[in-house]
Amino acid sequence: MKFMHLADLHIGKTILEQSLIEDQEYMLNQILKIIEEEKVEIVLIAGDIYDRIVPSSESVELLDSFLNNLIKGLKVKVFIISGNHDSKERLNFGSKIFENDGLYIQTTYDGKIRKVQLEDEFGKLNIYMMPFVKPVDVKQYFKKEIKSYDDAFKYIMENENINQKERNIILAHQFITNCGIEPEQCESETLIIGGTENIDVSYFDKFDYVALRTYTWTSKNWKR
Amino acid sequence: MKFMHLADLHIGKTILEQSLIEDQEYMLNQILKIIEEEKVEIVLIAGDIYDRIVPSSESVELLDSFLNNLIKGLKVKVFIISGNHDSKERLNFGSKIFENDGLYIQTTYDGKIRKVQLEDEFGKLNIYMMPFVKPVDVKQYFKKEIKSYDDAFKYIMENENINQKERNIILAHQFITNCGIEPEQCESETLIIGGTENIDVSYFDKFDYVALRTYTWTSKNWKR
Repeated sequence: MKFMHLADLHIGKTILEQSLIEDQEYMLNQILKIIEEEKVEIVLIAGDIYDRIVPSSESVELLDSFLNNLIKGLKVKVFIISGNHDSKERLNFGSKIFENDGLYIQTTYDGKIRKVQLEDEFGKLNIYMMPFVKPVDVKQYFKKEIKSYDDAFKYIMENENINQKERNIILAHQFITNCGIEPEQCESETLIIGGTENIDVSYFDKFDYVALRTYTWTSKNWKR
Repeated sequence: MKFMHLADLHIGKTILEQSLIEDQEYMLNQILKIIEEEKVEIVLIAGDIYDRIVPSSESVELLDSFLNNLIKGLKVKVFIISGNHDSKERLNFGSKIFENDGLYIQTTYDGKIRKVQLEDEFGKLNIYMMPFVKPVDVKQYFKKEIKSYDDAFKYIMENENINQKERNIILAHQFITNCGIEPEQCESETLIIGGTENIDVSYFDKFDYVALRTYTWTSKNWKR
């Protein structure tokens, strides 16, 4: 099954009071074209769909049009998690109804990571949907002290039973850093990106593909 | 086919800075109970779903839950038009996808009134969905001078071909006044409710049922 991984659409973003909505519409139309040409069957969108907690009406309209084209036009399945810029409640609207049409939206963690199972000629494909969470959102589920994002994900992942005989994909919108098994070695990086939001990449070892938010590393700071 | 007519839910309304959301949740749950007990098959919601153009996240969540219960739980068909308090774009989100599940949302007039045709043992049942419009929203469709709401509806209705051998229902969210064929006779009423927004009831003569917004007449003013 061919999939495309998107993230950080940030629909409705403005730069220096200039709206990017026309550029974003152009970009999304290009994405639709690629999906059609490449015969993509699954689209993963790993958070920050909107740029604001309360998106503008034109942002809502643009996402609506994009999703309609994906679901009704191109008949692909779409998996969306909320990012730190999204409102859980707003992005979640209609999500239970949408699932009949192959549009899955997950905006909460409820003690287990939401798993959707698909199947193709190669067997089972599990899609885990982990929306952006803060430690405070998950501590009710674990009788353990959770001081950091890293603690939170340690317990979240310990609580999952990933069947490695099947293919597993996870969508997540956290800051994942690649510091091997000894995160204390990479103090410089953790200082730069704000430290406490880091989650060690090793927690995701059991997944075949991890669909994260997009950021690029530069020498001084993280940029989207 | 048994239907229920609702309007002016105004989800998220506050009175003297007091949120009514808990009362509204209670009310919507009572409505769900009645729909179940009475075996209602169609729910018409004639505008003003939300109280504000930008509804709060808890309002979005409450409507989401209500619609899920209607569509997924009670398996009724739901027809919604936008009112003057609703944002066309926000209320319209997902509407094309929802239709697979029997949830119809109409927020624009595009030159013809949207008609959805149902059928039961008594024959065809046409549901016309006319969202709230101002004269400026419709004048592009008619090569005539449109000075008032009444003008607008005159031309909108002349442009429709209602088959009176079938049953016809219309949802609308305008101020309809019952002044017979000579609206100039009822000057006192038109003055009281703002005059120019009035639409004469005679334009709706061909419909078997007109599902309007809710208002009650008092001697001095209109109240919802």
